[in-house]
Amino acid sequence: MEYQHGGDIYTNRVELDYSANLNPLGLPEGVKNAYIGAADCCSVYPDSRCQALRTKLADYHRIGREAVLCGNGAAELIFLIVQAKRPKRALLIAPSFLEYEQALKAAGCGTTWFDLKEEEDFALSVPELLARLKEAEAAGQRPDILFLCNPNNPTGFAVEREALIPLLEYCEERGIVCVVDECFIEFLDEPERFSVMKELRSGRFRRLFILKAFTKLYAMAGLRLGYGISLDRKLLEAMDGCRQPWSVSGPAQAAGEAALGETEYVNRARELVNRERSWLKAQMEGLGLFVYDSRANYLFFRDPAQGRARTPESRSLYDACLKNGVLIRSCANYRGLDGRFYRVCVKDRANNETFIRELKKAMEERD
Amino acid sequence: MEYQHGGDIYTNRVELDYSANLNPLGLPEGVKNAYIGAADCCSVYPDSRCQALRTKLADYHRIGREAVLCGNGAAELIFLIVQAKRPKRALLIAPSFLEYEQALKAAGCGTTWFDLKEEEDFALSVPELLARLKEAEAAGQRPDILFLCNPNNPTGFAVEREALIPLLEYCEERGIVCVVDECFIEFLDEPERFSVMKELRSGRFRRLFILKAFTKLYAMAGLRLGYGISLDRKLLEAMDGCRQPWSVSGPAQAAGEAALGETEYVNRARELVNRERSWLKAQMEGLGLFVYDSRANYLFFRDPAQGRARTPESRSLYDACLKNGVLIRSCANYRGLDGRFYRVCVKDRANNETFIRELKKAMEERD
Repeated sequence: MEYQHGGDIYTNRVELDYSANLNPLGLPEGVKNAYIGAADCCSVYPDSRCQALRTKLADYHRIGREAVLCGNGAAELIFLIVQAKRPKRALLIAPSFLEYEQALKAAGCGTTWFDLKEEEDFALSVPELLARLKEAEAAGQRPDILFLCNPNNPTGFAVEREALIPLLEYCEERGIVCVVDECFIEFLDEPERFSVMKELRSGRFRRLFILKAFTKLYAMAGLRLGYGISLDRKLLEAMDGCRQPWSVSGPAQAAGEAALGETEYVNRARELVNRERSWLKAQMEGLGLFVYDSRANYLFFRDPAQGRARTPESRSLYDACLKNGVLIRSCANYRGLDGRFYRVCVKDRANNETFIRELKKAMEERD
Repeated sequence: MEYQHGGDIYTNRVELDYSANLNPLGLPEGVKNAYIGAADCCSVYPDSRCQALRTKLADYHRIGREAVLCGNGAAELIFLIVQAKRPKRALLIAPSFLEYEQALKAAGCGTTWFDLKEEEDFALSVPELLARLKEAEAAGQRPDILFLCNPNNPTGFAVEREALIPLLEYCEERGIVCVVDECFIEFLDEPERFSVMKELRSGRFRRLFILKAFTKLYAMAGLRLGYGISLDRKLLEAMDGCRQPWSVSGPAQAAGEAALGETEYVNRARELVNRERSWLKAQMEGLGLFVYDSRANYLFFRDPAQGRARTPESRSLYDACLKNGVLIRSCANYRGLDGRFYRVCVKDRANNETFIRELKKAMEERD
C-alpha cells in the first residue's frame, strides 16, 4: 500500500526531514529514561487497560479515568471510533488529516465533504459549517459523525473554543458524534483559548470526542501512543471491544506516564515553535513562496512557480528538495489541494537556517 | 471491559505469574540491546511498511517479502483478517484462543463451533473436522473462514502437518480461508513436523494464512510484534487497508530484527521447555491433578477436587493460589471448559520448584 503521509525516511534518502510535524526539541530526556527503564517490562504483557497511565491522564485533564481510552497512536482511535459507531454518513472537512477518510473507507462508510476554499485561505467558518449541517438535516442526510482537526492539519488554521460551542451544541442536540482532533493543540500559543476540553469537562457534551496524542507533542512517533476523551462510556467500551486487548505497548505506557511530567519541556517547545514559525515564515516568503497563517508547529504553503509554464526538465519543489536529501510534505494527495501545496514543520533555528539554505538552492536548481 | 486472558499482573498482587505462556528464558540479551539502541528511533515515525523486518522474515522463512504482513502482536492480525474478509460464517474450535471469537464478534460475524470432547482429552481429529465441514457444505452453510491454533491454546495439543494437508486441500478447493495460528509452534520438540510453512511455501495453498508471533517465543509480550504469512496478496493488502499506517512501533521492529538472529536462544528454550514440561507434569500429577498431554510451553490440567462437595469456605485453586501471590490461568471462560480447568506455563527448574511448593500449599489451604 502506498505511503501517504510525511515522515517516510525509509524509502527516501533523507538527511533533513521537514515532512513530519514532531516536537523540534526531540524526545524529552525523562521520557527516554523511562523508555530505557521499561526494557524489563518488554517481557510481560502490557496492562490491557492502561490503568496507571489513564489515572495520570485523568489527573492531568481533571476528568474521570473512565472517560479516557488509550490507543496505539491517535490513529488507532480514529479507526476504532469508526468501527465502533459504524456510521452511515460522515462529514469531513477538506483538506484535513487523511486517516479520517481512510478509516471511514475501511468501514464502508460514505463521506460527504465540507470543502475549505483557496480564496478564503482555507479558513474554517463555523457558521458556514453549521449551515451545511442544517442543510443536510433538511435534506434527510444528517451525518452520524463529524471530524474536525483543530488546529487543522495540514493548514495550521485553528478555531477558538468559543466559536466551536454552537457546533458542539448542534451535534449534541442532533446526536452527531463530534470528533475534535486536538493532537497539535499544545503547540498553540494559548491552547486553552482553542481546546474544547473545558466544554467536555462541563458535562454538557456527551457526543464530543476529543482526540489527543503523545506522538507530536513529545516527539514519540516511534513509540505509538494516543488517547481519546469522551463522556460516552458506551462508546469507549464499544471501541475497546473492536480491538485486541494489548494494542498499547508496555514501553509506550511507561513513556507516556513520564511524559506527563514534562511541563517545562512543553513550555519551551511552545515558545520555540512560536518564535521559529514567524522566522521561518518570513524567510520562506522572502523566497517568493505563499505561506499561509498557521498557529501550529508547521507551515502550509503554496509554490506560485508550480503550475506556470516550465521546461520539461523542471521538477517540483518536492523532487528538487529530495534530490538534496531534504524531505518536505507534498500536499498533492489531499482533497482540494494539488501539486502547488506543501507543508513543512518548524524546527530550531540551526535546522531552520539549513532548511532555508536548502530550499533556496532547490528553488534555484529546479528553474 | 473485563480482562479475559492470562498475564494480568496489574489488577492482582502477583509474585509468581504462571498464567502467561512466554519463553521462560526471558527477553534475549540481543533483543534487549536492540531495544535500548532503538531509543533514538522513538522520535521518528516507524516504517509503516516494516520493510527491513519483513525482508529478514522473508529470508528466515524462505518466502517472498510480499507474503509477510507485520502487526501489533498476532492479535492485531486476527482482528485485521476478520475486518478485511468480513466473513458471514466462521468455524471455530472450542476450546481455543479467545481472540478469534472476539474479533468475529466485533465484526458481527456468526460463529459455529467444533467442540473438542473432554472424554477424548480435547484432542483434535482432523478427519472429524473435515466431516463437519462437508456436512456444513451439504447444508449450504459453508464457513468463509476457519481458525486453527496449532499447538492449541490452552490445551497444548498439536496436529502434525501431514494430518493437516487434507484440511488445507479442502479449504483451498472450497475457498475457505484457513488461518493456522502457529504462535507456539517453535516451542515444540520438532516444529517442522507440525508447521504447515512448508505447505505454504509449496505455492499450492493460497487460502492458507499462517499466524506467528514474537510475543511468546522471544518473551516480547510488552513490545507487541506478530506477523502473518499468506500467498494471497489481495488479502494482505485489504488487511493493511483496515488499519492505521503505524501500528508496529519502531522499537518493536528493531527488536524483531534482532530476535531473528537468536537461534541458539530458541534452541535452548526448546530444550528447557521439553525437559521441564515433563518434570512439572509429573509433579502436578503427584499432587492429584489431572494433567493433559501438552507439546507446548504450557500445561493444561483439571482439578478433580473442584466440583466435589465443598465447605462454603473452600475456594477454587485459582483463588487459593492468588491469595499467596501466584497467578494461574483459570480456563472457566473458555467455551467447553469450566472452573475445573486451568493452564499454567512452564518455566525453569528453580521457578517450577517454587511453583510446585506454592501449588501444594494452595491445595492444602483451600481444603
